[in-house]
Amino acid sequence: MAERKKKEEAPAAATVKRAPRKLDGLDQKTLKLIEGTADRVRTKIDGRALPELKFPTRALSNVKYDAKVGYFELGRGQTARALSVNTVKSFAQTLRLMAISKEMVENNDFATKREAYYVSKNWGDCKFNEQVESDTVMDDIEALASLEGLSREQLRYYPEEHGGSVAGELVVIDTDAETGRPIEIDCTGFGSGSYSIPHSVEHLGFKTDAKFVLAIETGGMFQRLNNHKYWKAAKCILVETAGVPTRATRRFIRRLADDKKIPVYAFVDCDPYGIANIYRTLKVGSGNAAHINRFFCVPQAQYLGVTPQDIHDFKLQDATHKLLEVDVKRAKDALKNDPFFVAHKPWIRAIEQMLSMGVRAEQQALAKWGLNFVIEEYLPRKLKEKKFLP
Amino acid sequence: MAERKKKEEAPAAATVKRAPRKLDGLDQKTLKLIEGTADRVRTKIDGRALPELKFPTRALSNVKYDAKVGYFELGRGQTARALSVNTVKSFAQTLRLMAISKEMVENNDFATKREAYYVSKNWGDCKFNEQVESDTVMDDIEALASLEGLSREQLRYYPEEHGGSVAGELVVIDTDAETGRPIEIDCTGFGSGSYSIPHSVEHLGFKTDAKFVLAIETGGMFQRLNNHKYWKAAKCILVETAGVPTRATRRFIRRLADDKKIPVYAFVDCDPYGIANIYRTLKVGSGNAAHINRFFCVPQAQYLGVTPQDIHDFKLQDATHKLLEVDVKRAKDALKNDPFFVAHKPWIRAIEQMLSMGVRAEQQALAKWGLNFVIEEYLPRKLKEKKFLP
Repeated sequence: MAERKKKEEAPAAATVKRAPRKLDGLDQKTLKLIEGTADRVRTKIDGRALPELKFPTRALSNVKYDAKVGYFELGRGQTARALSVNTVKSFAQTLRLMAISKEMVENNDFATKREAYYVSKNWGDCKFNEQVESDTVMDDIEALASLEGLSREQLRYYPEEHGGSVAGELVVIDTDAETGRPIEIDCTGFGSGSYSIPHSVEHLGFKTDAKFVLAIETGGMFQRLNNHKYWKAAKCILVETAGVPTRATRRFIRRLADDKKIPVYAFVDCDPYGIANIYRTLKVGSGNAAHINRFFCVPQAQYLGVTPQDIHDFKLQDATHKLLEVDVKRAKDALKNDPFFVAHKPWIRAIEQMLSMGVRAEQQALAKWGLNFVIEEYLPRKLKEKKFLP
Repeated sequence: MAERKKKEEAPAAATVKRAPRKLDGLDQKTLKLIEGTADRVRTKIDGRALPELKFPTRALSNVKYDAKVGYFELGRGQTARALSVNTVKSFAQTLRLMAISKEMVENNDFATKREAYYVSKNWGDCKFNEQVESDTVMDDIEALASLEGLSREQLRYYPEEHGGSVAGELVVIDTDAETGRPIEIDCTGFGSGSYSIPHSVEHLGFKTDAKFVLAIETGGMFQRLNNHKYWKAAKCILVETAGVPTRATRRFIRRLADDKKIPVYAFVDCDPYGIANIYRTLKVGSGNAAHINRFFCVPQAQYLGVTPQDIHDFKLQDATHKLLEVDVKRAKDALKNDPFFVAHKPWIRAIEQMLSMGVRAEQQALAKWGLNFVIEEYLPRKLKEKKFLP
């Protein structure tokens, strides 16, 4: 009896058998990159020469902007790291991180940047002392892979955060880890809840007849549109960005929009943060991470609102807030220094209009006309007029 | 042809017909509270007397702590607000907000606190000038409702943020807004993604055979356990809190654990923030919001790890970080001033052990022994030993 009790209390087997890994084209490419790099190092060593690793230079000096491409790109500058007494540790660490990447691709596993740092604690003298060291090495590897069209997620190093909720006319196709069979996730079936985007979306497929993706800044607005099934009435897909969208959320929208050729409309607060941080990051990426923009920006995004002109058109004046000093600074900085805004006259006019009005308006300010004014009046009118900012 | 083209481009109808609202017991109770309050005011006015509204006093002086109850509770102190020249505006605002609440219950709608503030912009002289004003009035109403066992969500005022992802052996039962029929959301079916908890969870039902709920601090750890289907091997439900859990996440775990009588284990970083902020907020709520703790704390939660003793037991010493000054301050403050820790000797010992070691350890530090050590060794051993902190 005591024996039996013990058995019952023992924890269930802790692991589930996982399906053997089928490597897809991008996985093959990832392995080729890693093996090619390792081979070159090995050949040099076998030939008694000093091996070197070459990485794209990650600095503003090596960034180019082409309005047609639509985002900041990495230039051709390269930095070589030859094996020497001074570089031996980071040289070894780089190869180690790439070796783990190979293993993870083969085993269909992943690591966060933080986990990668901790894994190194078992490397003896080669271990990282601070995470900033492993992050730097990883950024180099990421930049290298980006030249081959491979993202860090493809190397199986996932970001720590995900976030981003989805509801509406979309079926996400994922793979069951245990059986290897495709599974379909119907984003119309979550009721008042929603689908939470995973940390990496590279493996996902999509089925949809939606006419557009609506990227929404605030949780409250997302919940309103979802609870009222706005996605059904307007035949669209709702994505909550919850402020500046994470890598996973941006990549999800990008892959979906590319794959299904549907437009993306951003619905954010009318303030310098909503425009110059949330929207701009979604659309063109950020300047100090040029090597990842090609994966993570959504060049097809357009700005639906709230626009400074909306404050007039929808009589929201008494539901606005005064621009703070930091808002004014951010707006002026965008006008002066940001190649994206500088390249688009309609944006210059809109930001100047906001500065001259001296106020900002949140998307929820539309509730002044009733909680569901946004559904019944605002969005239909904006979508009909189609006067989006670029 | 032009006509036809135009028709195609016109936006779809913006609204979906919603099912007529079936009021449940809590809705009836909410309406009774609002109507009762309004009736009392009306009767006084009809009798040419000055009406008054009474609210529980929301201050530390009106808080009681009973270790058996397990969370800070509101005392019997009341504050009366009689109608006068000075109070007429907030008096009217209070009644207005309660009137909107009634309307929302009847129409199955909701508003965020921010939306409620904006709605007032159409109230003429009665409007709120700043959101802090409407928040204060709403806190009073919330405290009043809490005495009847009604949360703010029941009044249909939802928090702005939600967050909280769920995966594993759980079927969530929601209601289709359009048809009014129940829908089942199977949290084993989302692949590498997950179920995102809505802003309010009062209306949800649950079906599960899970043995426990595992509340996980970090997104990276949640993704690992989900990708490896740990929830299947261990027959459990995974909930990602992403730091300090939101109201919606706490309420979700609480309702699930109450309803299904299953234990809740917290798996967080071993540092004063993980212990004294994340875990304590989950378990007993917070001191300055005593009127909501009865809904939002999870008194059945236990602390699985990472514990200071785990740093020894799993040889994580070289994967720790030094406690910062702010960590030491927070830990000492918990030992001295926090009635929850003060009431539990095992916690005093654990926190003192952490202070004497002078280090903290993240849950991902377990990756030192391999990425999946946490699944294959750590969690099974902890669950078998069942030596949880209270």
